[in-house]
Amino acid sequence: MKFEAIAVENIPLILRGDDLPSIICENIVLEDRDIVIIASTIVGKAEGLTFRLEDITPGERALELASRNGQDPRFVQAVLSRSREVLVEAPFILATTLAGHTCVNAGIDDSNVEGELLLNTPENPDISAAKIGERIETLSRKKLSVIVTDTNGRAFKVGQTGVAIGLYKIKPVKRWIGEKDLFGKTLEISEEAVADELAGAANLLMGEGNGGVPVVVIRGLDYYCENYPGIREMYRPEEFDVIKKGLRCLLKK
Amino acid sequence: MKFEAIAVENIPLILRGDDLPSIICENIVLEDRDIVIIASTIVGKAEGLTFRLEDITPGERALELASRNGQDPRFVQAVLSRSREVLVEAPFILATTLAGHTCVNAGIDDSNVEGELLLNTPENPDISAAKIGERIETLSRKKLSVIVTDTNGRAFKVGQTGVAIGLYKIKPVKRWIGEKDLFGKTLEISEEAVADELAGAANLLMGEGNGGVPVVVIRGLDYYCENYPGIREMYRPEEFDVIKKGLRCLLKK
Repeated sequence: MKFEAIAVENIPLILRGDDLPSIICENIVLEDRDIVIIASTIVGKAEGLTFRLEDITPGERALELASRNGQDPRFVQAVLSRSREVLVEAPFILATTLAGHTCVNAGIDDSNVEGELLLNTPENPDISAAKIGERIETLSRKKLSVIVTDTNGRAFKVGQTGVAIGLYKIKPVKRWIGEKDLFGKTLEISEEAVADELAGAANLLMGEGNGGVPVVVIRGLDYYCENYPGIREMYRPEEFDVIKKGLRCLLKK
Repeated sequence: MKFEAIAVENIPLILRGDDLPSIICENIVLEDRDIVIIASTIVGKAEGLTFRLEDITPGERALELASRNGQDPRFVQAVLSRSREVLVEAPFILATTLAGHTCVNAGIDDSNVEGELLLNTPENPDISAAKIGERIETLSRKKLSVIVTDTNGRAFKVGQTGVAIGLYKIKPVKRWIGEKDLFGKTLEISEEAVADELAGAANLLMGEGNGGVPVVVIRGLDYYCENYPGIREMYRPEEFDVIKKGLRCLLKK
């Protein structure tokens, strides 16, 4: 039992309107059950999600928050506009995006983008993944899954890892329900967040620094699934999220 | 650029005193720069870290906490004995272990262990990784890294992923310092938690359910490093850990 992770080399710098599926298919021969893992950076660029700080007028809340955390108020406004809740305000902003993903700066990226531009993450990453996935399947005539990824920090530890933010034809969580362990004891429901483990594995080749490898194919696993829930299945329901409750407690003080 | 993840098949059920390095070397031919990823379950079994609830007498704090969260007070005592801080008390215990790792039940495992036994994680997983790593290097005559792994839940999302808890000859975090991005902008310090990404990748083969594949080799990357910090380098310093501050705020209420 094994799998391979293969960097798709020679992906050019991506511009608005670029045909990612064609570009990917030109640079790798795909096989059935491949998982095509794509950095949200190039998905965002192809979708034209860049924007300029100069075009943003910060509102009251952004001005107030920026005065406390030292960030550019226009940047803060961009973050607020994309968030449904702010959980940490200083020294950095941790927010839950409209898509349900909790991350620093609501996923807005200012690296690997030309000049003074900033880059949003796709508003609905599952839809972005599906559009790309359907097209790649058509071009390659193979059954494929797609994961759109970002890199995020995490609780209790330093460093970032690759994480899944959008999915096509793959379930985010593998459920091991009611199986028996090696000694015959029935396991409670056990859930493996395979989409994030795959995103992390891909990031080992994508790297943090220069974004030079934005597409990785993982080959040899069996996660292809035509009926799949969206990425939201992976986000913890609010009533069970003790970490969010803790952060809200801190904000109130 | 690519890497492989290879399940080491035919690892037998591990008992106290078993020679893990020999068992591993008998079941795979290793190569220089391989990363040998080993589930803490078998490390703990080989080290004889099983224990019985019957042998534990719960103290006052354990009895009180158990009355609130419904767990067996002897189990709660076991968790408290292995923790330097409890961050969540109910409905489950989230604690920071003496080794600095924050996880549910301080890492005590009651699955994949025979009968009524429970299993501790190694007290100093770096030392456990080093003992195994030095011996495997001697037997195989190859330069190798070792990661001892566990599976943990995470903030904001459901599901567990493989995580690193002990390291040998590999840095937990890869630092991309001062490099320029594709457009020549100097990056701030960017840190990639490669040890956790590797642990997650290995867990795709190890699986959550029956622990049938407790050893995975990742081949093709270049992380071998003779001078390396311990796993503690990955744990966020307390003064910068806003999530812990939030949980403490909640506990006080």
